[in-house]
Amino acid sequence: MKSIIRLISFILLLSISTYKAEGQNYDLKRIEPLNWWIGMENPELQIMLYGQDIGELTPVIDYEGVTLKRIQSVDNKNYLFLYLHIAPQTEAGTVNISLMKDQREVVSYPYKLKERENQSAQRQGFNSSDVIYLITPDRFANGNPQNDELAGYADSLDRDDHYGRHGGDLQGIIDHLDYIDDMGFTAIWLNPVLENAMPNASYHGYSTTDYYKVDPRFGSNKLYKKLSKEAEKRGIKLVMDMIMNHIGSNHWWMDDLPSPDWVHYPDEYQQTNHRRTVLHDPYASDIDKKRFTSGWFVKTMPDLNQNNPLLADYLIYSSLWWIEYAGLRGIRHDTHPYAGQSFMHKWTCRIMEEYPNFNIVGEEWSVDPLTIAKWQRGSDLPTDFGSCLPSMMDFPIQVSLVEALTQKESWDNGFINLYEKLSSDHLYPNPQNLVIFPDNHDMDRFYRQVNEDYDLYKMGLTYIMTMRGIPQFYYGTEILMSNEKSHDHGQIREDFPGGWISDKSNAFSGQGLSEHKKEAQGFVKKLLNWRKDHPVIHDGKMMQFAPKHDGLYVYFRYNKQQRVMVILNKNNKETPIATDYYHEMTGDYNQGTDVVSGITYSLDKLTVPGRSALILELKK
Amino acid sequence: MKSIIRLISFILLLSISTYKAEGQNYDLKRIEPLNWWIGMENPELQIMLYGQDIGELTPVIDYEGVTLKRIQSVDNKNYLFLYLHIAPQTEAGTVNISLMKDQREVVSYPYKLKERENQSAQRQGFNSSDVIYLITPDRFANGNPQNDELAGYADSLDRDDHYGRHGGDLQGIIDHLDYIDDMGFTAIWLNPVLENAMPNASYHGYSTTDYYKVDPRFGSNKLYKKLSKEAEKRGIKLVMDMIMNHIGSNHWWMDDLPSPDWVHYPDEYQQTNHRRTVLHDPYASDIDKKRFTSGWFVKTMPDLNQNNPLLADYLIYSSLWWIEYAGLRGIRHDTHPYAGQSFMHKWTCRIMEEYPNFNIVGEEWSVDPLTIAKWQRGSDLPTDFGSCLPSMMDFPIQVSLVEALTQKESWDNGFINLYEKLSSDHLYPNPQNLVIFPDNHDMDRFYRQVNEDYDLYKMGLTYIMTMRGIPQFYYGTEILMSNEKSHDHGQIREDFPGGWISDKSNAFSGQGLSEHKKEAQGFVKKLLNWRKDHPVIHDGKMMQFAPKHDGLYVYFRYNKQQRVMVILNKNNKETPIATDYYHEMTGDYNQGTDVVSGITYSLDKLTVPGRSALILELKK
Repeated sequence: MKSIIRLISFILLLSISTYKAEGQNYDLKRIEPLNWWIGMENPELQIMLYGQDIGELTPVIDYEGVTLKRIQSVDNKNYLFLYLHIAPQTEAGTVNISLMKDQREVVSYPYKLKERENQSAQRQGFNSSDVIYLITPDRFANGNPQNDELAGYADSLDRDDHYGRHGGDLQGIIDHLDYIDDMGFTAIWLNPVLENAMPNASYHGYSTTDYYKVDPRFGSNKLYKKLSKEAEKRGIKLVMDMIMNHIGSNHWWMDDLPSPDWVHYPDEYQQTNHRRTVLHDPYASDIDKKRFTSGWFVKTMPDLNQNNPLLADYLIYSSLWWIEYAGLRGIRHDTHPYAGQSFMHKWTCRIMEEYPNFNIVGEEWSVDPLTIAKWQRGSDLPTDFGSCLPSMMDFPIQVSLVEALTQKESWDNGFINLYEKLSSDHLYPNPQNLVIFPDNHDMDRFYRQVNEDYDLYKMGLTYIMTMRGIPQFYYGTEILMSNEKSHDHGQIREDFPGGWISDKSNAFSGQGLSEHKKEAQGFVKKLLNWRKDHPVIHDGKMMQFAPKHDGLYVYFRYNKQQRVMVILNKNNKETPIATDYYHEMTGDYNQGTDVVSGITYSLDKLTVPGRSALILELKK
Repeated sequence: MKSIIRLISFILLLSISTYKAEGQNYDLKRIEPLNWWIGMENPELQIMLYGQDIGELTPVIDYEGVTLKRIQSVDNKNYLFLYLHIAPQTEAGTVNISLMKDQREVVSYPYKLKERENQSAQRQGFNSSDVIYLITPDRFANGNPQNDELAGYADSLDRDDHYGRHGGDLQGIIDHLDYIDDMGFTAIWLNPVLENAMPNASYHGYSTTDYYKVDPRFGSNKLYKKLSKEAEKRGIKLVMDMIMNHIGSNHWWMDDLPSPDWVHYPDEYQQTNHRRTVLHDPYASDIDKKRFTSGWFVKTMPDLNQNNPLLADYLIYSSLWWIEYAGLRGIRHDTHPYAGQSFMHKWTCRIMEEYPNFNIVGEEWSVDPLTIAKWQRGSDLPTDFGSCLPSMMDFPIQVSLVEALTQKESWDNGFINLYEKLSSDHLYPNPQNLVIFPDNHDMDRFYRQVNEDYDLYKMGLTYIMTMRGIPQFYYGTEILMSNEKSHDHGQIREDFPGGWISDKSNAFSGQGLSEHKKEAQGFVKKLLNWRKDHPVIHDGKMMQFAPKHDGLYVYFRYNKQQRVMVILNKNNKETPIATDYYHEMTGDYNQGTDVVSGITYSLDKLTVPGRSALILELKK
């Protein structure tokens, strides 16, 4: 891949004229977005030019349908921001951007306006018919050992270091799309793949150093696009992990900020207070609000000031560019509330205006639905700016699920947590579009969270697979990956077995994999493929029955065509079910066939095996 | 008092004619409400008649302005329900209710229509300028030993039994109104005082056996009215504890139910599931909803079926009767959600329509504001029926306060609980009208909850006394009453020392009271009296600052005239305050005088003594 990138860079260099005059070197280094498209819903386009003293030049554009509406210079002479208007009938082609000095062109750039792909605007985002597979690219599969170590990137390969780079890459994911497809996943979300030219711990990808460049150790922009296409062929939707709140401290901006207000607290490090409640607290102080949205996430992640309208637009256009360029079917947005309500309103609304059927899921890591729900599009909860965010990560359900499974049943422990948490769903305008998950890359592996208890693991996965929402699984959950040391991110993000040639076992082929892991894998695969063609789970209604601290939790998914009864049983022994109690749902039915075992149970005298889950498709 | 009751009963008997004819004994035993008033906002009145075969008779009324609109008989012939319309200009007087058989009057009753007291409709309910003193009447003071044991009431005096009757009564409260007034309380809420003719544990009062009769062991209706008048003279508002959800199993109805649907599950005991979330859970099953509102609270408390419109009206008129009769300034409504949304909507709206400035506080014992807030009048949260309830008990703040004080400070423990819980206030249409409390009669004594730590006790009380809302204290909190055994209701509701002649110490006079208790009493008295004339606390704005797990929690109450800075410090040592951080609030001020110690602190270099609270009135 390296060679391709270098070739692109070379071509780019050729096309950018460098002009030296009066001792000045007008060196145009960057034009972003890298290109644009005709026929976008919104005709506006912001272009950022960056290079030595570029700000002194006067840009001129002469292209039918394209108008240069506004030229914005900033404190730093090396930047120039152009605002173009692209009329609806404009044709694709190359727009020459001339940069003039004393009425002479000193630099010029051939900017591409491309045709959009067919039905681009109408693309369908991930939704509740999907199940998302979350992959940490460095830790899944090493498809191209050639890009493991690259000049210019200090954080080099060290598979023995939990926090080092392990060599996984986009090619590795492409190579195993068939596995993902076979398992029954219909969407993939990769932890961020943009360049992280950081000195260490760069493997996780959350320290962006270039908004327009896939990290070459993962591959290239083109390869990312290829992954998207290959996934699409298999009916798998690509979801990009984006971070608008902060950058990595090695982002190229940091050496030459466009303006002092480009990042918050540029001179004196100030951490965010992480107090997400300030955004709805009627009594919050201004300083706490400021500390929350303006403080840095951590020391290596400068906090962007999205109140700067040039930066806000830059971020919006970078996101639109990736959607259009790579054919994305969704975005997972990191640390959503930290960028503040005003910008997140602007960003989400602009994206959803361009792609009305798209999906974006925001990370708001709170356990109180009240703190989360206000972000979902259409919420009635008071916010300063509103929001167009269609989906949220359902952290409250994740926590409640683990409590439900691991706590001893009592009046206010065990299943009742899950039951009561779900009652808050009235806060969400669209609970069906929440992403539910047993775990993710930031917390202990689910198998670990349920104390490596296989029965509880299966009950938990049954819940996630049958509950309202869009399930998301972290890679390796299907083979019982765990982490010995709690909260150890490096261990949590362990390598997927079989992703490296030297691996002793291979979870893709099953070779060397323990029977236990294979069984789990088969269980997940069965449920995923069952869920795929059961719309009753995707968008059916839901009814739940109050647990009576007897170790049982029963709920139903139903629509006009189908009715599914889910029973979770934590008791050690076979447990009889008083089906009379569920008469509202079971009234017209006599029996139910369990999805996993295939056993048909009579509803008249139903008993559930100990420590197990049943998913009964009811029949008359 | 006994003699007065007997006199009343005698007069009543005289005025009710008993007629024997054709072997039938038309014995009119009850007419309820006991009387009514002219000039009520709503001209409707329901009257219940009860007596042998009364349902066979035809009522006739001939009184200018009063029309008998509807006569409703029920399954049980011993009941008759009349609906009267009382025209606006109707004059006070005695309405003869004739009960006819074969066009002859067989029974008659002189029903009084009285004048209302001046400004009755406009009475001001308790509000955030008040502090409520909660009294368990059996346990506060025995003002009349004559009524300790009465014929016909099986549950007799036993001061050695924590769950027995101790002899406290209304006269005891009247006798000590000056103490309550001196302390600085401006409202009293007594646990229920209506008759509880139950075989045991009747002292708590929550098993009503007659909706129109004060338990004679506490006194009489007239004495209750006297208490109200005597309280009013001292500027103390009387709040009545009412229970619409259930009755005691010895309620007279239970021997002769008006109809089988008067109570839920009349034949087979079914307990409520206590799952209050069913009322907003979009996925709740009908059976769980039914079990919640229709199940019995406990075995000795039959659950009323307020869907029966006759019963619903009966309950509404009984409540209106007590407000008007006793000059109430508020109601505390027990187990509010258990009676169901439909009836609680009807009941609260009808009362607030009659008394627009009145106040009713509902008990919804949940720790999630989401479960509580939907009940407050004006809530935007989805409910099936709406609600006119002006106030709620703030259980979430109670729990968070104890967590804040007793937990070791950390990222998500200690003061942060209180800070974050308060951020949910946007859910309440009127947080200022919530009742806040360190404890009540149903939980461990606050002093016990803070592990009998006097410093934490003072911090907690400082919080309750300066926070938004209407503070409520349980009797004895001011003298550090505690309970050795956790959750032991009998111990929690211990006798107030000095309320009985034989008591060794007297908290009213201070005699025999330990210096420590006296100090606490002085502390509470000082704060209460300070709060009384500080509107900034009653209805000032509020700003809080995010705790930084450094053992400090700082918030401000402010209005145009005044600014109060409250600092809670859990550190053992004197702690300096970085006042710069609070500049939004302290900017224009140089110093602050602590309400308790009287010490004036400079804001430039402010240090707070270890394990203490400061309430600083800021000055320029």
